[in-house]
Amino acid sequence: MKTVTITFQPVDIGISVAQGTTVLDAAMDAGVHINAACGGEGACGKCLVTITSGKVDCSECGKISAEDFKQGLRLACKTVVLSDVEVTVPETSQLDTTAAPTAREAKKDGRHVVSGEIDRLVSGAWFNPALKKFSVTVDPPTLSDNTSDLSRLLRALKQQHNLENISIDFLLLQKLSHIMREADWTVTVTTVQTRQESQLGEHQLRGSRRPKMISVEPGDTTGSHYSIVFDIGTTSLWGQLLDLNTREVLGVASEYNPQIQYGDDVITRIVYSQKKGGLEKLQQSVVGGMNKIIEALVTTAGVELQHVSHITAAGNTVMAHLLVGLDPKYIREAPYTPVANFFPPIRAIRIGLGVADYVYLYTYPSVASYVGGDIVSGVLASGMYQRPELTLFIDIGTNGEIVVGNADWLMTASCSAGPAFEGGGLRCGMRATAGAIERFHIDPATLEPMIVTIGKVRAKGICGSGAINILAEFLKTGIIDQNGKFNCNCKTGRIRKGNDGMEYVLSYREETGSEQDMVITETDINNLLRAKAAMFAGCQCLLEKVGLEFMDLQQVIIAGAFGDFIDLEEAITIGLLPDIAREKFTFIGNGSLLGAKLISLSNELLDDGERIARKMTNIELSEDASFMDRYVAGIFLPHTDASLFPEVSERLRQMKKLC
Amino acid sequence: MKTVTITFQPVDIGISVAQGTTVLDAAMDAGVHINAACGGEGACGKCLVTITSGKVDCSECGKISAEDFKQGLRLACKTVVLSDVEVTVPETSQLDTTAAPTAREAKKDGRHVVSGEIDRLVSGAWFNPALKKFSVTVDPPTLSDNTSDLSRLLRALKQQHNLENISIDFLLLQKLSHIMREADWTVTVTTVQTRQESQLGEHQLRGSRRPKMISVEPGDTTGSHYSIVFDIGTTSLWGQLLDLNTREVLGVASEYNPQIQYGDDVITRIVYSQKKGGLEKLQQSVVGGMNKIIEALVTTAGVELQHVSHITAAGNTVMAHLLVGLDPKYIREAPYTPVANFFPPIRAIRIGLGVADYVYLYTYPSVASYVGGDIVSGVLASGMYQRPELTLFIDIGTNGEIVVGNADWLMTASCSAGPAFEGGGLRCGMRATAGAIERFHIDPATLEPMIVTIGKVRAKGICGSGAINILAEFLKTGIIDQNGKFNCNCKTGRIRKGNDGMEYVLSYREETGSEQDMVITETDINNLLRAKAAMFAGCQCLLEKVGLEFMDLQQVIIAGAFGDFIDLEEAITIGLLPDIAREKFTFIGNGSLLGAKLISLSNELLDDGERIARKMTNIELSEDASFMDRYVAGIFLPHTDASLFPEVSERLRQMKKLC
Repeated sequence: MKTVTITFQPVDIGISVAQGTTVLDAAMDAGVHINAACGGEGACGKCLVTITSGKVDCSECGKISAEDFKQGLRLACKTVVLSDVEVTVPETSQLDTTAAPTAREAKKDGRHVVSGEIDRLVSGAWFNPALKKFSVTVDPPTLSDNTSDLSRLLRALKQQHNLENISIDFLLLQKLSHIMREADWTVTVTTVQTRQESQLGEHQLRGSRRPKMISVEPGDTTGSHYSIVFDIGTTSLWGQLLDLNTREVLGVASEYNPQIQYGDDVITRIVYSQKKGGLEKLQQSVVGGMNKIIEALVTTAGVELQHVSHITAAGNTVMAHLLVGLDPKYIREAPYTPVANFFPPIRAIRIGLGVADYVYLYTYPSVASYVGGDIVSGVLASGMYQRPELTLFIDIGTNGEIVVGNADWLMTASCSAGPAFEGGGLRCGMRATAGAIERFHIDPATLEPMIVTIGKVRAKGICGSGAINILAEFLKTGIIDQNGKFNCNCKTGRIRKGNDGMEYVLSYREETGSEQDMVITETDINNLLRAKAAMFAGCQCLLEKVGLEFMDLQQVIIAGAFGDFIDLEEAITIGLLPDIAREKFTFIGNGSLLGAKLISLSNELLDDGERIARKMTNIELSEDASFMDRYVAGIFLPHTDASLFPEVSERLRQMKKLC
Repeated sequence: MKTVTITFQPVDIGISVAQGTTVLDAAMDAGVHINAACGGEGACGKCLVTITSGKVDCSECGKISAEDFKQGLRLACKTVVLSDVEVTVPETSQLDTTAAPTAREAKKDGRHVVSGEIDRLVSGAWFNPALKKFSVTVDPPTLSDNTSDLSRLLRALKQQHNLENISIDFLLLQKLSHIMREADWTVTVTTVQTRQESQLGEHQLRGSRRPKMISVEPGDTTGSHYSIVFDIGTTSLWGQLLDLNTREVLGVASEYNPQIQYGDDVITRIVYSQKKGGLEKLQQSVVGGMNKIIEALVTTAGVELQHVSHITAAGNTVMAHLLVGLDPKYIREAPYTPVANFFPPIRAIRIGLGVADYVYLYTYPSVASYVGGDIVSGVLASGMYQRPELTLFIDIGTNGEIVVGNADWLMTASCSAGPAFEGGGLRCGMRATAGAIERFHIDPATLEPMIVTIGKVRAKGICGSGAINILAEFLKTGIIDQNGKFNCNCKTGRIRKGNDGMEYVLSYREETGSEQDMVITETDINNLLRAKAAMFAGCQCLLEKVGLEFMDLQQVIIAGAFGDFIDLEEAITIGLLPDIAREKFTFIGNGSLLGAKLISLSNELLDDGERIARKMTNIELSEDASFMDRYVAGIFLPHTDASLFPEVSERLRQMKKLC
C-alpha cells in the first residue's frame, strides 16, 4: 500500500495516508475541520475544497457545478488522493470558532426570562446538593479501640454529622489509611448521594438515595466545593461552574461540539458510530470539547481543578449514548429503541474527562430515542411539571421536541424538522455566528432590503432566526405568496432565475466580498416551510392525542438557545408558533443547562428530574398518518387552515402588498 | 550496571540480573521457589542453597554453620552475585508440590465430622443462592412500544419472574442491545444479590439486598450455573466448584499459596508488601494460585469457564487485604488497625482472576486485624452462632484464633503461637506433606522410636501434628520432664548434646538417606511449649473476660486443616487443648472453605455471615498483662496449674516412667 502526503492550507497541516484515502477522512485524522453536514455521503455539498496540486480521483463527485469543478473545487468526501496533494480549505468550510455561541445577546422583551429570574420558575426546592463536604476529626486508634480505619471514619461521620448508611468507593478505600494518618486524623470527606441500585429500574423508584464517599482529603477543605454542569448539544456544548457552598454560577463557557466533523445531526453521527472505531472517536471528540470547557471554567474562575467534585450532563438521547459509550445503532432504525433511558453514574476519568479521579459523571435520564435528557432537564427548569396550568413546551431545532401537560401528566413527541432552523439545507445557510443575517426588512419604496448581521460584520449567510424574519417579511410585503413562491411581478431586480430555480438576492458579491451573490432560493423557502410545518403539526398532533386545542393552552414555553433569538411575532406570522395570546409565551433559553444546574443544587430536584423522565409518555409521530396529513397542511403561510391563525390572517389581509 | 546470569539447578532455569542482586530476589524473579520462612531477613536459615560455580559475596551470612559454609552452602537471601553463577537449590528448600495438602486422610474417630454431615451443623437455611439465572423472553420493540432495550428486559423480568428493583452493570449495558437482537429476544439473565450501598456501613445493616444484572446470554443457559469458593490460607489455597442448580460440590482443588516465596507468615508478607511493587506482587501471586485452582476445577468437572458466574473467598484479614489490593501496613503496627473489615465486591478480572468479565469476587468480612473472614466463615459453618450452647471455637495455626459464645453473643481473640504447629521454628520441621513424621511411639523395652510418616516414605522432617504426638510420648515415657528438658539418665544413645544444646535423634542419617541425623532439640521443644501455651492462655483469657471457665463449656469446635489431623488425647496431654469431657469436642476441618460454600448457596447465610462479623467483639491480647501471666504459666507440661488438667495429671502420675 502506497503512502501519500496531504497538506491542508491555509492551516498548513500535513498528514501521511494510504493512497485512495478520501480528503475528508484525511482531514479528520489530521484534526483539520471541514464542514460535512451529511457525514460524508456527498449529499450536502458543504465540504468543498480546492485541490491546489497533485492527483486526485473524483469520478462520482456529485453535487457540484461544472464551473466550480473547472476551478478545481471538489467535495472532500468524494475525492480520493492518488499522489501527494495540497488541499485548500475555503474559509466558509472551516468551523467558525472565533465567534462563540455566546456572541449574541438574548432578546429582552419581557417574555424572555432573564437568568436571575429563571430559578423562580421552579418552586419548593431548597438548597441541598447531592454533593456534600464534611470536615471530620477521627479518633486515632488505640489498643482498646482498634477497629478498622474505615469503621472509625464512618463512626466519626455518624457522631459529628449524623451521616450513616454510607458506602465507599473502592479506589478510595485503597488510599484511606495513608490519607487519614498523613492528615493526623483530621480530614474532609466528600460524598455524593446516589441511588445506583434502583436508578435503572425504570419502572420503579424506591429506596432513598444514600451517600457514597468518593474522596477523603487532608485538613478542612469544605470552603472549596465546586461542580460543573453541561448541556451536550448536537451543535454546541455549554458548561457552567457552580460554587456548591454559595450556589453561585462562577462562570459559563461554550464550544462547538467537535463531533460536528463527523456529521451535522444525530443521524449522520449514528451512521458514523457504526464505522470501525467510530463510537470511540465520537466519544473522545465530545469529551475533548468538554475538557476545553472545564479548563476554561476553572482557569477563569481561579478554582483548583481538584476541588471540582461532580459533573452533571444533559443532552439528547444520542448525545447521552455517545457520551457514556453506548451504541446508538437502534435509535436510528424503526422502531427506534435506545439501549437505555437511565444511565448509571460513571467515573468521569473513565471516559477521559480531565478531572480528579474520584469525580462521577451524572447523565440526565431520557424518555425515548428522540426525547432526551435535555428535554427532561428543560421541563424541570420550566417548572411546568409542578403547576396546574396546561403548558406546551417546545424546543425548536433540527429535531423538534414537544411536551404538553402539567403537574398531573406529561406527554411528549419529537418531529424531525430538518436542519433549516440551524442554517442547514439553505443555499447560504450558516450557524448563528458573526456575519449571519439576523434581522431583515424590506424598504417599501425601493423594495431594497435592510440587513443586520450578528456581530454587525459583512453578511456571510443566513441563520435560522434570520430566515424566519426574512420569510415573514417576504410574506408581509408580497415578495412571496402563501405557497412560498416568488411573485415575479415584483418590481425588483433581486428576484431572478438561478441554477436552482427562482431566487432572491439578499446581498450582491460586491457587498459581501465573497465570490458569489448571497441568495435565498425557492428551494430554501420550501425547506423552511417544511421545517415549520413539521414543528406545528407535531404540536397539533400531540394536543389532539389528549383532546386539546391550542386555545386550551395556558402557557407556551420556548426552550433552546435558538428560541432565545426568535422574534415571536415573526415566528407566529410564518405559522411556526400558534396564533394565541402573546403573553402566554415564555422564553427560557438553554433549559437543558438550566435544569442541569438545578439538579446539582438540589437533591429534591434531582429526584424530580428522574420522576419527570418516568412520567413522560412518548408518542411516536414519525409514521403516524394524522401527523403526515397535518404536516402537508402546514406547508403554507401561515397555514392552509386560516382559522388556526386568525390574527395573522387578519393582519395579512389588511396589509398593503408592495407588489 | 553490569548484568550477570544466575542459573538455578536442578530446575535449569537461568535469569539475567544486575550484579549485586541477592540469589533470593533472582529466584523470585525467575519463578524458582525457595523456602524463605522469614521473608529474606536471614533469620530462619531455611533458604540454603549451594553455590556450584561463580563468584558471590556473603559477608553477613548469618545462621549457617562453619562446616556447611565450607561445603558451599549459603543463605540465598544474604548472598549477592558478583559474576555468572550456578546455584543448586536443595530438595528440602524447594516447595513440595507433589504432595498436595489433600494427601492425608482426616481422622475419623467419631468426633471428626465427615463432610456430608457438616452442612447439618447449620440449620434453618434454605437453598437460595445470591447468584441466580433467569430465562426470559422479551417482547420485540414495535412503534407503539419502543421503550429502551433495558426497560423491556426489566419489564419481562418483572412479568415472568416477579423480579424488580434491579440494577445493571455498566459494561453489560454496552452490549445489551446486540445480545438481545442476536438472541432473537430470548435470553438468560444472571443476577447477583448485592448490598453494595450499606455493605460497608459497619455499624448498620439496613436495606434488603437487591439483584444486580451482571450477564445476559443468548438462549436458555439456566442449566449451567456454577460458582467457585475459596479458602485463602496463608499456607494453602483451597477451592471448590459448586453447581448452583443442584447445590452439589463438583470438585475440590488445592495449591500452596504462592505468596510463601515472599514470607511464611502474615507478618513477613506485610513487610514484603511495603517494598516497591510488593503489594502488587503479593496480589498477583495469590491470584496466580487461585487461577491454577480454577483451571483444575473446571477442567476436571468438564464445566465451561464462562458458566462460572461468581467467586467467594474467605481468608484472614491480611490475606483479604492482599487479595483485593489494600495496604496491610497498619495491621502490623500497634494498635493493629486494618483498612477495612468489610470489602466491597470487586470485578474478578480487575485483580487478574481468569474468569468471565462479568464475575464478581465476594470477600468474607473480617472482625479485626488478626480475626479474619476465615474465622467468621468457620463460625458460620459451625452453627455455634445459632445455638444456645456455650461454645469455644479454636483455629490452631501460626496465628491462633479463638471465639467463645453462642446465639446471644460472640467474643473473639487471636494469639500469636508462632509457626511451630506448621513445622516452622523446628530444626527438622516441615509442612504436613509426604515424609513428615505423623505418628510416633517409644518402645518400652529398647526405648527405640517407631515412626510413621505421611505417605509412608522415608522421614524427611516433623510436621505440627507429629510434633504434638512426639511431645506427648516423650512426656509419658519420661524422656522429657514437665519443663520440656531431656532426662539425661535415660538409657538411650539417642539423647545427646548437639550444636544447639540437648537433642533427641529421631532418625539417623543412614535411615533418612539425607546428610544429617533428624533430631528434635530442646529449643524445638521449648518452641512447641510456647506455642501451646499461647493457644491455651488465649482461651483462658477470653473465657475469663466473660467470667467463664473451661468446665462451663458445652462444646469445643476445632477448625482448620491442621485440626483435622490432631490426635485429641495427645493434644490434651501436652496442654494444648483443655482437659474436659472428650465428647464435647468436634472437629470440622476447613471451616473457612465450608462457610464460603454455605454463603454461596444461601442468601440468608450470607446475611448471617455479615451479622457474625458485626456481632463478634474482638479482645486484643497482645499487650494484655493477664495474658502474659497465663502464657508463662502454660510453658510447662501439661500446665503449672495441674488442677486445670486433672485427668492428664492423674494419668501421668500412674504411668510407669521408662527412665
